Amino acid sequence: MLCRDAFELPDGIVYLDGNSLGPLPKGARERAMKTIEHEWGQELIRAWNSADWIGLPTRVGDRIARLIGAAPGTVATGDTLSLKVYQALAAALPLRPERKVILSDTGNFPTDLYMADGLAALMGQGHRVVTVAPEAVEAAITEDVAALLLTHVDYRTGRMHDMARLTEKCAAVGAIIIWDLAHSAGALDLDLAGLEVDFAVGCTYKFLNGGPGAPAFIYARPDHVADHAPTLAGWMGHAAPFAMERGYRPADGAERLRIGTPPVVQLSILDAALDVWDGLDLADIRRASLHLSELFIAEVEARCPMLSLASPRDGHERGSQVSFRHPEGYRAVRALIDRGVIGDFRPPDIMRFGITPLYVTEADILSASKILADVMAHDLWRAPEYKRVARVT
Amino acid sequence: MLCRDAFELPDGIVYLDGNSLGPLPKGARERAMKTIEHEWGQELIRAWNSADWIGLPTRVGDRIARLIGAAPGTVATGDTLSLKVYQALAAALPLRPERKVILSDTGNFPTDLYMADGLAALMGQGHRVVTVAPEAVEAAITEDVAALLLTHVDYRTGRMHDMARLTEKCAAVGAIIIWDLAHSAGALDLDLAGLEVDFAVGCTYKFLNGGPGAPAFIYARPDHVADHAPTLAGWMGHAAPFAMERGYRPADGAERLRIGTPPVVQLSILDAALDVWDGLDLADIRRASLHLSELFIAEVEARCPMLSLASPRDGHERGSQVSFRHPEGYRAVRALIDRGVIGDFRPPDIMRFGITPLYVTEADILSASKILADVMAHDLWRAPEYKRVARVT
Repeated sequence: MLCRDAFELPDGIVYLDGNSLGPLPKGARERAMKTIEHEWGQELIRAWNSADWIGLPTRVGDRIARLIGAAPGTVATGDTLSLKVYQALAAALPLRPERKVILSDTGNFPTDLYMADGLAALMGQGHRVVTVAPEAVEAAITEDVAALLLTHVDYRTGRMHDMARLTEKCAAVGAIIIWDLAHSAGALDLDLAGLEVDFAVGCTYKFLNGGPGAPAFIYARPDHVADHAPTLAGWMGHAAPFAMERGYRPADGAERLRIGTPPVVQLSILDAALDVWDGLDLADIRRASLHLSELFIAEVEARCPMLSLASPRDGHERGSQVSFRHPEGYRAVRALIDRGVIGDFRPPDIMRFGITPLYVTEADILSASKILADVMAHDLWRAPEYKRVARVT
Repeated sequence: MLCRDAFELPDGIVYLDGNSLGPLPKGARERAMKTIEHEWGQELIRAWNSADWIGLPTRVGDRIARLIGAAPGTVATGDTLSLKVYQALAAALPLRPERKVILSDTGNFPTDLYMADGLAALMGQGHRVVTVAPEAVEAAITEDVAALLLTHVDYRTGRMHDMARLTEKCAAVGAIIIWDLAHSAGALDLDLAGLEVDFAVGCTYKFLNGGPGAPAFIYARPDHVADHAPTLAGWMGHAAPFAMERGYRPADGAERLRIGTPPVVQLSILDAALDVWDGLDLADIRRASLHLSELFIAEVEARCPMLSLASPRDGHERGSQVSFRHPEGYRAVRALIDRGVIGDFRPPDIMRFGITPLYVTEADILSASKILADVMAHDLWRAPEYKRVARVT
């Protein structure tokens, strides 16, 4: 399934940060030009029809649906992941009006918790966000829980929750599950429909290679949509947006979860980025990712005794990244980047490496391991240019 | 101030739909390529720093601020206009907790009202959206009104509210004003700071030429931001987003109104589109728009007795578009488009023509008037290809 030729990748780089921003698919570059020069430039306003911009969010949603084990018509695209978390939670809480606990874990990505806090405060109905350690989540799923909001794969360690087990536990006690698939979509073989997941949200600029700031997505189980009165009731979720009616009549299916005018340029780029996945099977991707991850762990552990594995050793409990801890991880990552191995750092001490078999090879992994060993063994990170400054990614 | 050369415009077209989707600025095309090929393609994740993607929303916000009469640091960009309406209203209502009326007018763009309805329902505090006729708004601004949510320029008729007068009336009774500048930004000489407007929102794909699905913006009066606890508390509005703290600590100023990961490609395109405005004065643009609009009204009224002016005749009450009514307006617009005059239709009977002096000339106006007269005088819209079908723009 390796398709490195489908991507623009600079020479001399081992890119282990596709879990943060996927690289540029060649087809996406061409599609961007077509959308900008031909559709916008020449067709102008007519492109809403002639290039079917209006149908783009749904077409792209259906393509994402296939990659996360969901049926066509169940995924809407647009906005940001932060917003989609809010949207899913705002849809979930009214399904359990008598329950006040929004459960999450302490490893969740901060924005998910901030958005939950903000929603709870606005609703003013006494909801509270309760976070427990990741391993304590299962026991905390009780009949007090309105919604369980979890990021499937921990952004720092790659620790992966057992989606089937926790989804089942939620169903058993009547809690609504919302999975954040930020580090899962395009990396793991998911089956949202089969597991009867309630809601899921995700972003598309990581493993799906949709480009910086690419739109997010939301999945909703069809029965939840059917009687859902959207809080974020934008005109694009109306049954007849261009009738310009005073009253909101929600569209059917995931269309109802559309909000405002779609980001046509970014959606077009994403649409082209998804071409890479045609004919690929996520089970194969996952297998290749596990193989490369295990190779990386073995090589690094053999060469770098000063690093400790932060990711679960068992592949079944790990997403598609490998993280190591080191007190000077921030500086070490900068030294690595200067030597052509691009990973990233997450506080307090996590060196994070994304494993993306679409364009990362065994040779890349071996090369990265050697360079990492060199940086660590010779303390190359001590060079003054790597001292800590404000850093944003 | 005419700068037609700054835009890609197809030959043989008179483009009178820049109030719906502005045309492609040449610099925007080049910037898109740079962002996609160089920044994304070559810099990859490093571009968050090396190309300052992280600062882009604020830089673009400051450029928009100048165009709407606001100070630097008071405008945030991102998301969609629907969302920004929700965000502004969610910030406004807690400022007047004892008041329950969200006032608007019956001419408002539907999504503004839908979003207000959705927010009111979610908050469950008895807020209700009350709409009155546009001319009845002033009298309806009473001490019951928590927030007045108005689109400054009516999307169908171009009828323009008196921003100074209504803002002042709101201040007098303690109501919070939220102006939707969808059809104002880039068309009118605005002075939000001088008028002490509370909140404003707008989109950038119309008169600002930011491209299809370009990000929206929100302005907040600095004193409202200072003690605002955001409902949509995304990580990009955090004082230190990459510290990944559990608790939300809002950033200062308009940064606090950022939500999720910014749409980097669309923001970059918008940034380049704003270059066109450097050195331009909105007062000059407005003067030119009034001149062209009056010319168009005079020409069309002289030639097309079957059309009735739907826009205010007095330029001081009209934004930067001219609309006419005709029972077969839908078909007439389609016939016009086939003849190279691109305007659009809004139900039930509005033929809408945007006046954009950056790239529309007197000759364009005269040419469009003649073609319109031809279509109407000879009933060219009766041709079978113009019969009504589902249409989305």
